[in-house]
Amino acid sequence: MREFKINHTDKSLAESAQAKIDHLNKPKGALGRLEELALQMCLIQHTLSPALHHPCHLLLGGDHGIEREGVSVSPREVTWQQMINFTRGGGGVNMFCRQHGFDLSIVDVGVDYDLSGVDGIINRKIARGTRNFLHEPAMSEEELCRAIEVGCDLVDDCVAKGCRILCIGEMGIANTSPSSIWMSIFGNIPLDECIGAGAGLDNPGIEHKRQVLNAALDHYRETMEQSDLNAIRYFGGFEMVAAVGTMLRAAEKRLVILIDGFIMTACAIAAIRLYPAAQDYMIFTHCGDESGHRRMLDIVKAKPLLNLGLRLGEGTGALCAFPIIDSAVRMLNEMNNFDTAHITKYF
Amino acid sequence: MREFKINHTDKSLAESAQAKIDHLNKPKGALGRLEELALQMCLIQHTLSPALHHPCHLLLGGDHGIEREGVSVSPREVTWQQMINFTRGGGGVNMFCRQHGFDLSIVDVGVDYDLSGVDGIINRKIARGTRNFLHEPAMSEEELCRAIEVGCDLVDDCVAKGCRILCIGEMGIANTSPSSIWMSIFGNIPLDECIGAGAGLDNPGIEHKRQVLNAALDHYRETMEQSDLNAIRYFGGFEMVAAVGTMLRAAEKRLVILIDGFIMTACAIAAIRLYPAAQDYMIFTHCGDESGHRRMLDIVKAKPLLNLGLRLGEGTGALCAFPIIDSAVRMLNEMNNFDTAHITKYF
Repeated sequence: MREFKINHTDKSLAESAQAKIDHLNKPKGALGRLEELALQMCLIQHTLSPALHHPCHLLLGGDHGIEREGVSVSPREVTWQQMINFTRGGGGVNMFCRQHGFDLSIVDVGVDYDLSGVDGIINRKIARGTRNFLHEPAMSEEELCRAIEVGCDLVDDCVAKGCRILCIGEMGIANTSPSSIWMSIFGNIPLDECIGAGAGLDNPGIEHKRQVLNAALDHYRETMEQSDLNAIRYFGGFEMVAAVGTMLRAAEKRLVILIDGFIMTACAIAAIRLYPAAQDYMIFTHCGDESGHRRMLDIVKAKPLLNLGLRLGEGTGALCAFPIIDSAVRMLNEMNNFDTAHITKYF
Repeated sequence: MREFKINHTDKSLAESAQAKIDHLNKPKGALGRLEELALQMCLIQHTLSPALHHPCHLLLGGDHGIEREGVSVSPREVTWQQMINFTRGGGGVNMFCRQHGFDLSIVDVGVDYDLSGVDGIINRKIARGTRNFLHEPAMSEEELCRAIEVGCDLVDDCVAKGCRILCIGEMGIANTSPSSIWMSIFGNIPLDECIGAGAGLDNPGIEHKRQVLNAALDHYRETMEQSDLNAIRYFGGFEMVAAVGTMLRAAEKRLVILIDGFIMTACAIAAIRLYPAAQDYMIFTHCGDESGHRRMLDIVKAKPLLNLGLRLGEGTGALCAFPIIDSAVRMLNEMNNFDTAHITKYF
C-alpha cells in the first residue's frame, strides 16, 4: 500500500481562532458545538476564514462474500439494484445531495453485477464482490492496494474540481458484518458486543450472524499473522477499503471529511489506526441506530453531531449534518463582533 | 384574550401516511426521526405530500422590569443594541435565516428604547419594557391581550405571504427569569430546579437570581388569584406573550411551528397549557445548554431534534434544525418506493 504523508493540523492557529470565535457577537460559548466545529475548520484549512467549496459525495458500492452465509436480511442483488436506482435520482442519498448541493459520484468498486453500461456509474470495479471471509481473506494484498488507489483517485478528482469538503457513503449488502469485526479488532471489544441487527435482522438472525462472525474471526486468528493491514484486507469490502483510501488521501490533501454511520465509522477507525493524524480532518456526523455505533465512536472519543436514529447508510447521516458545519463556517465569516456591532460586551 | 379554535390534527390520515413512509426505498424505520417528522408534517397539512412554503422567522424583542434586580449578566441596553444589529444583518439569527432561506421579521413588542425610526424594525411596541414582577404584575390584562394580538397579526401577515412554516425567536435581556417561573408553575417543578445561568451568570449571580425569583413567586401567590392567564401576565415579557400569541394563531392556521430553546419552550408550554391541541403543530427543535431545558421539554414529553449545546436564543437553534425537517418533507416527495425503484423489498 502507498505511504501517505498526513500531518496533524497546526495548533499554533488555535489561540487566534478561538479569540475570533469568542469575540463574535454572542455570549461566549453560546453556539456550543458550532464553535468547536468552527475551530476545527480553521485548523484544517489553516485560516480564520475557512470555506466549504464544492462539497463532494462519493457513494462507493461493493458486494461481500460473507453475504452467502445469510448474515443480512437483504439479498445481495439489492446492492446493484440500488446502485442503478441512485443513477435515477430516487434514493435517499440523491435527495440529501440535491438538498445540500453535493456533487455526487456513484462508484462501482466491487459490485457483483455488470454495471459497466450504466450511465452515471463510475466503473472502478476490482472484482464482482469479495471472497467469503468465513473461509479465506476477502481480498488479496494486491486487491487491497488497488482499492486504496481507487479511493485516492476519487479524492484527486474531487480536489481537481475545487472540493474542500468530502462526504463518503456506501452501498454494500452485508457490510455491517466486516464493520463489526473491524470494530472488535481495532477497538479491542468482544465481538459479540459489536454485532447488531444491520438493516433489520430478527433475534435468531442476529444469533446466526454472531456464530458466523465468531467463526470467521477465530479462523483469521488461526491462519493469518495479526496486523492492521491483514485485518483490513481479510474482512474488508472493496467499497470499505476504497473508503479508507479516500479518508487517508483526503486527510493528506487537508480536506474536511464527513464520517457517516456504522460502516463509515469502522472505515474511519481503520484509517486512524494506520495514520492517527487523519482524525484531525474528520467530523463524526451522527450516532446511528445500529447497535454498537455509540461504542464504536467512543473508540476514537468522537462526539457525534446528530442522534436521529438514522441507519440507512449511503452517507445520508453525514449529508444530513452538513448544514450544521456550514453554519459553523458562516458564523466565522458572517457574524459580526462586539466592536462592529456596537454591542456592550456582556462579560 | 381572544378565543382560538385549535383542533388536533386529523389522525385518520396516519395509517396511509405511515404506509407511504414504510414503502419508500429504504429499510423500514431507517431514517429514524425523519420518518416521525414526515408523519407529523402529513398530519399538520393533511396531505401525503406536504410542503414547507415560504419559511418565516419572527424575531420578537422586549425588555423586562425584573432586569432591574440584577438577575442577568447583560445590561438591558443590549436588547435594543441587538435589535438594531439584526437590521444590519450581522447577528446569529441573520446568518441562519440567510442560510436556510427564512423571511426574517424583526419586531419591537416592548423594547425599552425608541426604535421607531429604525428601518427594518416593525413597531408593535406595547410599552418600554414590562413592570418589575418582584413587586407587581409585569403587564395588565389589557396589555396581555394586545401582546397576544401582536402575535396573531404577525402570523396573519406571514400566512398572507404564503408561509406554511413558522419559526419564532426572542431578544430580551433577563427573559430566562420569567421562563424559569413559568416552567415552575406550568410544570409543577420546584423553582430552584428551574433556574440556571442565563447568558453567563456565575454561582453568586445564580444564587441572587434564585432569591429574587423566589421572592417574586411568593409575592404573586400571596397577592393574585392563581390562574394560567394570571401567571402569564404577572411574569411574562411582551415578546414572550406575543410569542404565545403567534404559536396559538399559527396552530389555528395549521402552520408547522418550530420551537427554539429555553425561553421559546416556556412560551410553548404556556400556549399548550391554554390550548393542548396546539402541541400537534409544534416541533421542539433542540435541547439548549440552559440548565433545566431538558426537564422543561419533559413537561410536554418533547424529544428535541438537536443537542448541540446552543444557548444563543434569537431562534437560532430552531433555524439550525430546519434542514432536518426539510429533509423529512423531501423524503416524502423525492424518494422513490420499492415499486418505482425496482428494488427487491427487504422485508
